[in-house]
This record gives sequence, C-alpha cells and structure tokens, in this order.
Amino acid sequence: MTSPAAATPSAARKLFRDGLITPTAGWAPGYTQANLLTLPRADAYDFLLFAQRNPKSCPILDVLDAGEVTGPMLGEDGDIRTDVPLYRIYENGELVDEATDVTPWWREDLVSFLIGCSFTFEAALIEAGVPVRHIEQGSNVPMYKTSQRCRPAGGLSGPLVVSMRPVPAELVATAVRVTSRYPAVHGAPLHIGDAAALGIYDIDQPDFGDAVDIRRGEIPVFWGCGVTPQAAVMESRPALAIGHAPGHMVITDVRDSQYLVP
Amino acid sequence: MTSPAAATPSAARKLFRDGLITPTAGWAPGYTQANLLTLPRADAYDFLLFAQRNPKSCPILDVLDAGEVTGPMLGEDGDIRTDVPLYRIYENGELVDEATDVTPWWREDLVSFLIGCSFTFEAALIEAGVPVRHIEQGSNVPMYKTSQRCRPAGGLSGPLVVSMRPVPAELVATAVRVTSRYPAVHGAPLHIGDAAALGIYDIDQPDFGDAVDIRRGEIPVFWGCGVTPQAAVMESRPALAIGHAPGHMVITDVRDSQYLVP
Repeated sequence: MTSPAAATPSAARKLFRDGLITPTAGWAPGYTQANLLTLPRADAYDFLLFAQRNPKSCPILDVLDAGEVTGPMLGEDGDIRTDVPLYRIYENGELVDEATDVTPWWREDLVSFLIGCSFTFEAALIEAGVPVRHIEQGSNVPMYKTSQRCRPAGGLSGPLVVSMRPVPAELVATAVRVTSRYPAVHGAPLHIGDAAALGIYDIDQPDFGDAVDIRRGEIPVFWGCGVTPQAAVMESRPALAIGHAPGHMVITDVRDSQYLVP
Repeated sequence: MTSPAAATPSAARKLFRDGLITPTAGWAPGYTQANLLTLPRADAYDFLLFAQRNPKSCPILDVLDAGEVTGPMLGEDGDIRTDVPLYRIYENGELVDEATDVTPWWREDLVSFLIGCSFTFEAALIEAGVPVRHIEQGSNVPMYKTSQRCRPAGGLSGPLVVSMRPVPAELVATAVRVTSRYPAVHGAPLHIGDAAALGIYDIDQPDFGDAVDIRRGEIPVFWGCGVTPQAAVMESRPALAIGHAPGHMVITDVRDSQYLVP
C-alpha cells in the first residue's frame, strides 16, 4: 500500500486510474498539482486568449493538443482521461455527471488545459512561516465571486473569483514576497484588506469552499483563483467541458520548484 | 518638430501614421516597444499555443481581437494598420511588400499579436552597468538560428532563434539577474557561453542582424529572440501575415517598468 506522502506522481496516477477516489492534498508532496479543463477545439482559442488576458486567475501550465491524452507534464504512461481521481462533466454549461474515468465522453477534438493551482505556493507560505488557516482547519480555501469582471476574450467572460487567506499583519509582506515568486500558480495577491472594495460584504459567506476564522490582527489577503476560468467557461456554455472535482487535482511529474522564479 | 526622445507614444504613433519612416530605437524612451504579428483568425490558435509553449522566445503582451485595430496598449486613438513606421506583408510565407499603411490588406478576420521585445531589458542592462555592444556600435543585435527546435503547436514549428550580447565575465551574473526580472520581454538568458552547443559555429556570421565585437574576457550570452515566432509562422505559410519591418516597432502606451517583476 502506497502512502500519499510517499507516492511518486506516476504511482498516484496509477492508483487513481485503477479507481481510487480521494482528494489529492498531501499526495506526492513537492510535485505540482494542476486544475484540469478539457474543451472542444472550437472553444479552445477563446479560452487560451482568456487565460493570456487574465494570467493571475488562469495561469496555463500546459496544453494537450486535440485528442492527445498525455504530455510532458504527465509522462509517457499518463492518461488525462483516467488519471484524475474524480471528474466533473458539463454539457452546455450544466453539470451532468461525476466519474472516475471520462473515456466514454472522449472525443478526438478535445483539448486539455492544465492550469496552475495554489497548492504550490501554499507549501512555500508554510515553509516561510506564514500560517495557512484552511489547512490548519482541515477545510477548503474560501473563495468569493467579486464585483470585478475579467477581461473578456471572444465569447468568454465572467467575474473575477478570488481565494482568501487571513495573514497576520506583520507577515503580509512576507506572503506577498513568497507568492510573487510563483507567477505560474497565481502569483502575488490581487488585493490586500478592504474586502468591500471587491464587492465582498460578508466574508463569512464564501461563494465556494469553506469560511475560515479571521483572528485579531489578521488581514484578509486575496489571490487569483482557479475557479475563475471554470466560472467563465460555464457562462459560455460549451457543448462539452470536463474538469476535475474540487480538490481532486491532476498530479504532475513537475516539481514545485520548477515554478519558482528568481 | 517632436524629437524622438521627447515624443509621447501617442505623438510618435501619429507621426508614423502620417508617413514618417524611421527605426524606433530611441523613440519615447521608457515606453515598451513591441513586435507585431497579424494573422488570420484561422491561424491564431496555433500561434497562441506556440507562444504559450515557447514563452521565452514568444512573450505575448497583448492580442487584438479579430478585426480590432486598437486595444489597451495603444489607446483609443491607436490604429495597428497605420501606427507602425514600416510593415512587411507576407502571402503564403513569402514577403510580397513593404508599406507604411496596411489598410489595403486589412480583413475583418485578422488578429494582431503584440510580442515583447528586448529593447525593454536593454535599457535596464545599461542602467545596471552592463554594456550592450550593438547599441555602442550603432548596429542591430546579432541573431542566430540554432540547432534546437521550438516545441511545436499544431502546424507551427521552427528553429529556436537567439540574440547574442557579449558580456564581461564579471557582469554575466548581473546580466542574468537584471533580465530575469523581465520575463515578459524574453527574460533570463537561454544559454551562456559555448555557442557550438547551440549549433552556432561562426559567431561572426549571424543569420540576422549584424556581427558585433567580442572582446577579451567577454562571454557570449544568448537570449530568446522575437524572430523565433516569425520564423515559425513563415514556415507554416499562412495565407496572409503582417509584421513590422526589423527595428520599426509598435510603440505602446505601457511603461517598461510595468514588465518588471519583483
């Protein structure tokens, strides 16, 4: 039996391919986990341009060409149709199924986007001594739809979605410094303090994820969030879209340190 | 009469729109100059994906949607069909014309890519005390086709093209440090010393631009080069492509400092 912390990315993907369903937090530590969004080729240009225009919300790590099921981040034995523990399938913007294997939905015109995830910088925050409350509380990060819109691309547009981590005032600068060194996984905060300026009026009522305690002396710090691209894509109602179930990410062969800039 | 160094970006673009033909080096200092590549929408996805996969060679700064002639980098009065001092027009990969105004070739399905240019980091190198030889010599930077291939995207592929600047050995680390802070304009060097490993056997015979003196104690330092995307696009022979003539860049409203990362 492989323990999550001892699993190689390849071994973890094999377990998921064989049917294991589990959130991936804590699996193959030190290796980058990614958000997945699979779309028909007809919708891919607008999405790629949307990502280019909103890089802090939608940092593309790699793209698998139409019909390809693996690529450099997943190794020769990878298969994007089976290697995520749990998928969500959307038709015309509506969730129609969850599955551990999307082979029955696969089409030769599907393009898969691997998108950076904040798991990467959270490890770096903890190492730098910045507490990460939702990890301490064993819950999901709180996420909020803001009153700001992303820059649109073709038919794609949607609200800016942010994640929030409360940071002690004396560590906010450290949190900025650490995360700005990971531009490929959301990078520096978009907004620090003053939730109302983002249209967030009740911080205890996140739109996605779980509320977390904000203690005396802590400032809410807001980062770009990987839910942003999904929210925009759902608004545009593509015929088919496949994503990962929340927290059930793509485990890649790439080390987190690869995304650290000097 | 506006002097190049005193011109605002908007004033410079107006002069070019009115027919002035001049290389743009030294114009509107402090403002970002960009490479231009305009392609039919049918070729745009492959190009955008090629750029995503080869970011050091092809750093996209912005994309004007199909048929749009201006965007946030050019201001409301901008017009990408007229605001570059000199254009090159390619049909099926062959240069067919040079012009100061490409309105006669314009089509509603044309998408324009603004691509980062090393002018931005050269100013920073000089400020950091690193000599830039081709500027000292008043010539164009030497560029070389290497024996390495870019990562392909769809039908697009081509050789990695690099620019070279000789740097005194004791300043090579400074040159790395300074340019790595500008990832949107080619970023850190791809290769330092050992030209033969790139398939460059005669450094005095660049494939594009001009040879420069390499003095005793200087190391050739190689950066990703904006000729790379053009070379790949030309190999794929799109029905129509419009670019800038070498050295005759798009002057944007964005300050160079905007591309400085912490």
